[in-house]
Amino acid sequence: MNYSLRQQKLAAELARYGVDALLVTHLPNIRYLCGFTGSAGAMLIVAGKKAPRVTLFTDGRYTQQAATEVQQGKVTISKQPAWMAAALRARQAGVSRLGFEPGHLTFALYQELSRQLRGKVSMKPVAGLTEHLREVKDSDEIEQIREAAALGCGLFASVIAGICPGIAETTVAGELEKLARSAGAEKMSFDTIVASGPRSALPHGRASSHGIPDSGFIILDYGVILAGYCSDMTRTVHVGPVSTKGRRMYETVREAQLASIAAVKPGAEAGDVDKAGREVIRKAGFGAYFTHSTGHGVGIEIHESPRLAKGQTQKLVPGMIITIEPGVYLPDEGGVRIEDMVLVTESGCEVLTPVSKDLAEL
Amino acid sequence: MNYSLRQQKLAAELARYGVDALLVTHLPNIRYLCGFTGSAGAMLIVAGKKAPRVTLFTDGRYTQQAATEVQQGKVTISKQPAWMAAALRARQAGVSRLGFEPGHLTFALYQELSRQLRGKVSMKPVAGLTEHLREVKDSDEIEQIREAAALGCGLFASVIAGICPGIAETTVAGELEKLARSAGAEKMSFDTIVASGPRSALPHGRASSHGIPDSGFIILDYGVILAGYCSDMTRTVHVGPVSTKGRRMYETVREAQLASIAAVKPGAEAGDVDKAGREVIRKAGFGAYFTHSTGHGVGIEIHESPRLAKGQTQKLVPGMIITIEPGVYLPDEGGVRIEDMVLVTESGCEVLTPVSKDLAEL
Repeated sequence: MNYSLRQQKLAAELARYGVDALLVTHLPNIRYLCGFTGSAGAMLIVAGKKAPRVTLFTDGRYTQQAATEVQQGKVTISKQPAWMAAALRARQAGVSRLGFEPGHLTFALYQELSRQLRGKVSMKPVAGLTEHLREVKDSDEIEQIREAAALGCGLFASVIAGICPGIAETTVAGELEKLARSAGAEKMSFDTIVASGPRSALPHGRASSHGIPDSGFIILDYGVILAGYCSDMTRTVHVGPVSTKGRRMYETVREAQLASIAAVKPGAEAGDVDKAGREVIRKAGFGAYFTHSTGHGVGIEIHESPRLAKGQTQKLVPGMIITIEPGVYLPDEGGVRIEDMVLVTESGCEVLTPVSKDLAEL
Repeated sequence: MNYSLRQQKLAAELARYGVDALLVTHLPNIRYLCGFTGSAGAMLIVAGKKAPRVTLFTDGRYTQQAATEVQQGKVTISKQPAWMAAALRARQAGVSRLGFEPGHLTFALYQELSRQLRGKVSMKPVAGLTEHLREVKDSDEIEQIREAAALGCGLFASVIAGICPGIAETTVAGELEKLARSAGAEKMSFDTIVASGPRSALPHGRASSHGIPDSGFIILDYGVILAGYCSDMTRTVHVGPVSTKGRRMYETVREAQLASIAAVKPGAEAGDVDKAGREVIRKAGFGAYFTHSTGHGVGIEIHESPRLAKGQTQKLVPGMIITIEPGVYLPDEGGVRIEDMVLVTESGCEVLTPVSKDLAEL
């Protein structure tokens, strides 16, 4: 990963926001900017005349790890909380206007920092700067995400083969997660969703102790983390033969998902991608049952910018990796969702999760 | 769970903090106060003359779930972010002083809320109120945590039986996690630690791709979540026969752990429990290698108040459930940690994780 380039890009933006330095407290942003993967730390980036000066602050648990991981920048091991050590260093370094991440600093920490810095350094919220850089993946990232997506896809057939009526949803999830570990995944990118029968009408039906029914949809929504990058995919299968209505629901969602994918290309607005699929669902009469947005960016975090929702005017750019995941959920009956990860290319997009979308009747 | 009682206890504290209502944004606190388990929501509790008025705000994904889960209080499904909807409701309801959780509201949201409420409602940070209530578990919670702890304990023998030199730490973790799922766990309460050989000297050695060595300690630190409550336990085993020094390290940690457990009783200070074990380790000459605190509360979250560390004067109270987990870590050699969950009782304490602490040589 080219951390040096990322740091330069970030530093080049600081003047425009009226700050001399940025305190980075969001761990995924820290990882993106300097490679540190520990669970506690803060980063200070001071815009210099030539190169920016970058320091990672963490505690004694991560001495060895930080020294190995942070190649572009210095490391300071501190007994103070990292965010405090970083801010005090900014003061020492003569920073007069310190930017911070308002979405990733609690009010309590903001208050404490203001107290400590009072009169010497003015603090200024600078929102979404690193997140904006992260929207467009570089080639190293695309490669990593491609591998994570492939690992996730590779598990699907085995998981499906193990499903039978009566076993608990958590058992299905447990088998999936064990396979993921064996295939080299660090962990799952979010709580695995196995929502069967009437529970498939819950868009976020995490695997529960409920047994797989004799008949009904099962939504499987899962992702793995590989080398720090997330995958995300959903498929819906049916236990037993599907009814005519169920089939119509499924085909509507599939058609909607393909319509949204077809709308993904450079220059398209995020809201238009949402609209393309939503229209299909509306016309089929299920409009009231597609209750969430169409998708989101994926990368170091499972939910990143951009957001693909109604009215979003942000334009897609080559290198963005987003999910396309429409769904229809009939309360107390059941639901269907189909989700792929797609990479925005120069000419349109590439689906990174090419698992069949033909309805499997188990 | 007696949500009504919890809400009353919380409401009774509000006047003391100079507020008429509290905006709760920390999801574990929301779960504790009204039972809602979704991943997005905010709660408003307005102190009334008789009973407090409680409303949970969430979005369309959770319509069905919120209606089922929230029995004590109203539910409002909103298209606005839940925290915003809750704060605007406070204004409508004539609240003039609204408390919020400063450790669980970002600066960005605080700013946005201040803008929306300007002049009508004053916002005041109220830290740790629900967390304080959560320190002492009620009988329903004790029962749940007891079950989670028992589930975790029940996996240990099978996991140990599957360990042999050469297999990856992640494979051990994967097997453990699958067993946990099969036994009904919702998920693990944190990233499973399997730290073998020299990696056992890392207090937070999450399972890695490293193979189990032919000889050396393995620290296994894991927990499960059952019905929303966490378990937490650590045992250290040895592959092959242990050296005299290794044996001395192990027995020192065991003696220290038992000394700290013996110090747990109502009225004891948290710092004294830490001191009891730390003294044993210091006298054995390993003082410099016990680099963390002795333990923490466990419940809906894996790390809760109280903290059992040097100098903590907080007094233990019957119903608290805490971990006792001293360790000794020799850099580049290896480490030992032994951890139990204990319930503070009227007369002392009860160990909830009664798995043998005799050193197993695999």
